[in-house]
Amino acid sequence: MTAIRYELIKKDSRTKARVGVLHTPHGDIETPVFMPVGTQATVKSMTPEELKSIGAKIILSNTYHLYLRPGHKLIEKAGGLHKFMNWDRSILTDSGGFQVFSLGSLRKIFDEGVEFRSHIDGSKHFLTPEKVIEIQNALGADIIMSFDECTPYSAEYDYVKKSMDMTIRWAKRGKEVHKNTERQALFGIVQGGIYDDLRKECANTLVEMDFPGYSIGGLSVGESKELMYHVVDVTTEYLPENKPRYLMGVGSPDALIEGVIRGIDMFDCVLPTRIARNGTVFTSKGKLVIRNAQYAEEFLPLDDECNCYTCKNYSRAYIRHLFKANEILAARLATLHNLYFLINLMENLRYAIRQNRLLEFISQFYKKYEEG
Amino acid sequence: MTAIRYELIKKDSRTKARVGVLHTPHGDIETPVFMPVGTQATVKSMTPEELKSIGAKIILSNTYHLYLRPGHKLIEKAGGLHKFMNWDRSILTDSGGFQVFSLGSLRKIFDEGVEFRSHIDGSKHFLTPEKVIEIQNALGADIIMSFDECTPYSAEYDYVKKSMDMTIRWAKRGKEVHKNTERQALFGIVQGGIYDDLRKECANTLVEMDFPGYSIGGLSVGESKELMYHVVDVTTEYLPENKPRYLMGVGSPDALIEGVIRGIDMFDCVLPTRIARNGTVFTSKGKLVIRNAQYAEEFLPLDDECNCYTCKNYSRAYIRHLFKANEILAARLATLHNLYFLINLMENLRYAIRQNRLLEFISQFYKKYEEG
Repeated sequence: MTAIRYELIKKDSRTKARVGVLHTPHGDIETPVFMPVGTQATVKSMTPEELKSIGAKIILSNTYHLYLRPGHKLIEKAGGLHKFMNWDRSILTDSGGFQVFSLGSLRKIFDEGVEFRSHIDGSKHFLTPEKVIEIQNALGADIIMSFDECTPYSAEYDYVKKSMDMTIRWAKRGKEVHKNTERQALFGIVQGGIYDDLRKECANTLVEMDFPGYSIGGLSVGESKELMYHVVDVTTEYLPENKPRYLMGVGSPDALIEGVIRGIDMFDCVLPTRIARNGTVFTSKGKLVIRNAQYAEEFLPLDDECNCYTCKNYSRAYIRHLFKANEILAARLATLHNLYFLINLMENLRYAIRQNRLLEFISQFYKKYEEG
Repeated sequence: MTAIRYELIKKDSRTKARVGVLHTPHGDIETPVFMPVGTQATVKSMTPEELKSIGAKIILSNTYHLYLRPGHKLIEKAGGLHKFMNWDRSILTDSGGFQVFSLGSLRKIFDEGVEFRSHIDGSKHFLTPEKVIEIQNALGADIIMSFDECTPYSAEYDYVKKSMDMTIRWAKRGKEVHKNTERQALFGIVQGGIYDDLRKECANTLVEMDFPGYSIGGLSVGESKELMYHVVDVTTEYLPENKPRYLMGVGSPDALIEGVIRGIDMFDCVLPTRIARNGTVFTSKGKLVIRNAQYAEEFLPLDDECNCYTCKNYSRAYIRHLFKANEILAARLATLHNLYFLINLMENLRYAIRQNRLLEFISQFYKKYEEG
């Protein structure tokens, strides 16, 4: 028995897009889905109730960050991550591979694992594929990730090939020690950089190992969007239809759309919450930088087509004032709006697939979004 | 016709405490009441709905701050402060006297008004008692304040006497230009430092001018609590029973209690929200600094006698983690709790007055609060 089950509901006739339901121990999730990121056991500035109010069914948290602070043992004592953070819907934890490799000179990679220094206090740590599973077992997320090396965009073929082989060995080692399979589904992560044959090889090998779901890692790390979409296209070809596919770290409106039509079911990204805190919001007519002087006396909502709490109750002028005055409510209102925008976009994409009008919806969306 | 009406419901038999209802254009407010402070048209980190959920009926905002940013003309264009900030209950605006005088060397006082430089951009401004009313008329709060000079605790008798005379002249000038009396009630502010005869003279003179309510200003500026309570005692003796009395800038639990038994009806203070953002919370057993290591593995609420959202859903361990990780949710949860604590304390005080057991309630409260 595996913790999750992917139910394919409908395939689009003209693209690789599909609608499905992901059954998890903490509820059912319609896919394709965007997962808000709560790196440190909180989606920045939001309460769980607010996330529910905008339709979030699953959020992401981070193994690396929670291992360092407050520590997975503490969270285990608290009754697990769900209880600790007061979130009773699904959670996915990233393995920390991406975060550890982002540390650059602060880490050293061995076949056994990775030695690194904490970004918080400089303390020395060693994470292995087994340890990463142990941490994620303590956290208790519904979906957990294998430890992987995320290679930089600039990496040469030989380096990426060797790294991919290691990522596969790590996936195997993690799978062997993961016992809690009835409550937590462990995904394999496809690496292989921008090299089609490596992506194919990695996908095929992981699929043979029979994970309950597959992530596509190592993208959105500096390559062009066209190249990213190409790699996604190549990779999903080798992933089984009856398992969910998760494109890691991708969350701009256009990349969500392009991922969906290439057969992706799950996305996460810090982008909507991060740009919100800096005062940039998505609207149906494109992005808007609310601090700009032109909005000082605009008493319209951020997006007049949006039904979120922010747009129903506050003007651009007020939100701009909050940002200029460094008020916390600014981050809250913009974050809620940006997350609603992406969650709503995904709902519209699912609806369009069901109605056989996905490409029409996308073309209308782009027309307005780019004109704006 | 005046905008507000104070209805005296019950006087305590053993103290000067009283329960009343303040009828305002934006609803009825049971007094004594604590008013959360929203200096810049937002109670820091809170939404209006959250303030309502903890029972806030009236909030405070600030003339000085809103005049400088975003500007009262802009707020007037937005439809007034209530609409601008999405708050349909009562608002009181302070005149900015306290803020201007806090600028120290950045301001010069004349009988005509005060010249000062903005704390935001250094721009030069001149505020008169008439201008302060004009600004508050544009903002549209239910209760507005006369312009006053807030003298420092250390000020000599002669300086305080002269300043008080000016504050009285300013109150008169403000009252003359305030036309919108049916929608906005203008309070006079009693000054006079720590000198009993000046407080008496100022109160008597303002009462003769017949304001719909009276504020006690110039306290909690460095004097001992005993001295502050003494001045409050002296001043309320000269204020009429049929008008509300507002003690400005006071908001610690003990000062609220001591104000109530001396006949105060309204309080405001940044204390609960400010200390919350630094991680200090009120509990029934006294204050608690949540960052302290001792709370790292405490899975109890901040206060096990509290019914607020924070205490019903989150542990000390989680809230401490949020503070250590500099998460915005930390400020939100602590702010909500501290405001709830004070609003709930006021409700308990009102209930105790109605039940003829005010002193018993206070003695029980102090016993636990100080033991903790």
